[in-house]
Amino acid sequence: MENGQNRVANQAKLHAIIPAGGAGTRLWPLSRVDHPKFLIDVLGRGWSLLEATILRLAPLSASITIVTGRKHERAVREQIEGLRSKGLVDTALDIDVVAEPSGRDSMPAIGLAMMLVAARFGEDAVVGSFAADHAVDDEDLFRGVVRDAIRGADSGYITTIGVEPTSPSTAFGYIQPTAVEVAAGVYKVAQFVEKPPADVAERYVADGFLWNAGMFVMRCTDALGHLRDLHPGMWDTLLEIAGLWGDDGEDDTIDHLWETVPKIAIDHALAEPVARMGGIAVVKAPAGTGWSDVGDMKALARMAKSPSHVAGENLLEFESSGTFVLAPQEKVVAVVGIDDAVIIDTGDVLLVTTTDHAQSVKDAVDLAREMGLSDIV
Amino acid sequence: MENGQNRVANQAKLHAIIPAGGAGTRLWPLSRVDHPKFLIDVLGRGWSLLEATILRLAPLSASITIVTGRKHERAVREQIEGLRSKGLVDTALDIDVVAEPSGRDSMPAIGLAMMLVAARFGEDAVVGSFAADHAVDDEDLFRGVVRDAIRGADSGYITTIGVEPTSPSTAFGYIQPTAVEVAAGVYKVAQFVEKPPADVAERYVADGFLWNAGMFVMRCTDALGHLRDLHPGMWDTLLEIAGLWGDDGEDDTIDHLWETVPKIAIDHALAEPVARMGGIAVVKAPAGTGWSDVGDMKALARMAKSPSHVAGENLLEFESSGTFVLAPQEKVVAVVGIDDAVIIDTGDVLLVTTTDHAQSVKDAVDLAREMGLSDIV
Repeated sequence: MENGQNRVANQAKLHAIIPAGGAGTRLWPLSRVDHPKFLIDVLGRGWSLLEATILRLAPLSASITIVTGRKHERAVREQIEGLRSKGLVDTALDIDVVAEPSGRDSMPAIGLAMMLVAARFGEDAVVGSFAADHAVDDEDLFRGVVRDAIRGADSGYITTIGVEPTSPSTAFGYIQPTAVEVAAGVYKVAQFVEKPPADVAERYVADGFLWNAGMFVMRCTDALGHLRDLHPGMWDTLLEIAGLWGDDGEDDTIDHLWETVPKIAIDHALAEPVARMGGIAVVKAPAGTGWSDVGDMKALARMAKSPSHVAGENLLEFESSGTFVLAPQEKVVAVVGIDDAVIIDTGDVLLVTTTDHAQSVKDAVDLAREMGLSDIV
Repeated sequence: MENGQNRVANQAKLHAIIPAGGAGTRLWPLSRVDHPKFLIDVLGRGWSLLEATILRLAPLSASITIVTGRKHERAVREQIEGLRSKGLVDTALDIDVVAEPSGRDSMPAIGLAMMLVAARFGEDAVVGSFAADHAVDDEDLFRGVVRDAIRGADSGYITTIGVEPTSPSTAFGYIQPTAVEVAAGVYKVAQFVEKPPADVAERYVADGFLWNAGMFVMRCTDALGHLRDLHPGMWDTLLEIAGLWGDDGEDDTIDHLWETVPKIAIDHALAEPVARMGGIAVVKAPAGTGWSDVGDMKALARMAKSPSHVAGENLLEFESSGTFVLAPQEKVVAVVGIDDAVIIDTGDVLLVTTTDHAQSVKDAVDLAREMGLSDIV
């Protein structure tokens, strides 16, 4: 990880926004409702996914705004203080925590954060929104991509970072770039497309489409302008909330207003309609960045290489291969006759599945909740 | 379970011999070298397999001789005392423990036990040998079969109990009966055949062959006579050992003699050659006895119905069926996308396999031993 000393010339231009929400139920039983994925060191790298995200963005950023649920506010602040106390984050770096009254998906969260950034740093401030629970292998390469995206934002485009596919995944939506370069390395987007079936995904990859990783870099003035045009009611309400934000005693009003904001993702609210108007650009994050949404156990198995986290020497595979184990260090785990097994032993819960069923874990957790096993989800 | 009060007229005729050996590595990690299958309540019925075997045979028996390894002698005696202290075994029932200096397979163990029985109860005593680690569902029905076998022994035949197959298993050898009835319900045996391939097993079952369960009921005089004729050297040595048995200070001589006895199973040493001479008879144990050798996790899964042993209410199956779990009561176990999974969590070791791979567990344990993981096998 870099620290404050390695800052680059254009770092002061980025105001990072980190939406930290979602239970990450596909990573259950590691991730729980009360102890979600972004707060956990699921990769065994020494950092929670949130901490790694902060450390990744800090060298580029003039400010960081983390938007999270009220019940996670304290844990988020503790992780920030932990980084500060270890000297890993510059004391001068402005890190703000915005605690949402309730989860209303990404557009209201990012919209409010943008308004708060705009109020403090001006309408021309460039924000970049990055989920708190994604991971990257090559942090330097990734920051280079973000710098390219800042150039796209400076050119007036909502600039997304599309990930070069390493497989025709059906777990992601895709971005179709055009050949129109709006800044060095930044291309206009033709369209966003939904998660495709396998055969369509193959075609997308062959045609140079990129994975939609939900990362957006943009000037506040551009993004908020689009929001005002496309969703004037939401824009009004968020502006009212932003005006009240931080005033003591206004929580009830904020809570009341917040509940009237529609739940909608930034992709649907902003990215897709603005793409149709020609206002979106994309920078390609090369496969070498090793970006992952750590979206399920299959992705986790691919990312987690640390032998301190995987029960390496205590794993006995027989007539089996590709086993991924997270278990107490001292435990011996034997797998006989199952390929690509995923075994997660958290002490209170044991999950046994295969990477092919990684996406179904979420449905299993939903079932557990329906069965009343709410204490384990 | 019956107790002493339910004894039947011919009970005094049986002198039960229970060879209690073998690590049961196919039931690893439940069964360990130092804590083998026969000492454990693997079925969750409240009794170890050895205790259940004693309780099964006690109502029929004038004496019980348990032959085990020296390192298990203490545990075996403790289990016997446990049954006595609970009043489950008649205080008058003679239960002897014969601790072998080393494991030399079943013929020496049963041969020595027979000589000790013959010396105490006479050459005409009828012995019955029953493994310590098998299980039965219908104990009364099973005892009826043993009584039939005693009639076969009284007619001068080494009488085996063949189990009516419930499937064309390839895990057992088979017994081919003839139509020649030597006593009521007791038929001469044509031959013993080795564990067959699947297609041959199908034919055997169609032709009325029975599973060879390794149970033999016989008069000492007949069985020892065959042993003397077929293996005079072994007979001589065992007789010398039996003569020294129980004399203080003779352990070194016994140990030395014992090491010269060949390792051989009673099937090869006695049953097969005597069958060729027309001296073996068989009684059929109907499928309804529910006999099982509890030979692997598949057999265990079939036998173990007790919800106190299987993590019943804490098992979450999703896109899965037929899961068999042995885990701590409080642990939640979730299986996603694997049919017929077998999951054994003993705290220090976690085994994950499927019933189809149940037989391979033994090979996995052998591998673990080769890998130097001797503390977990």
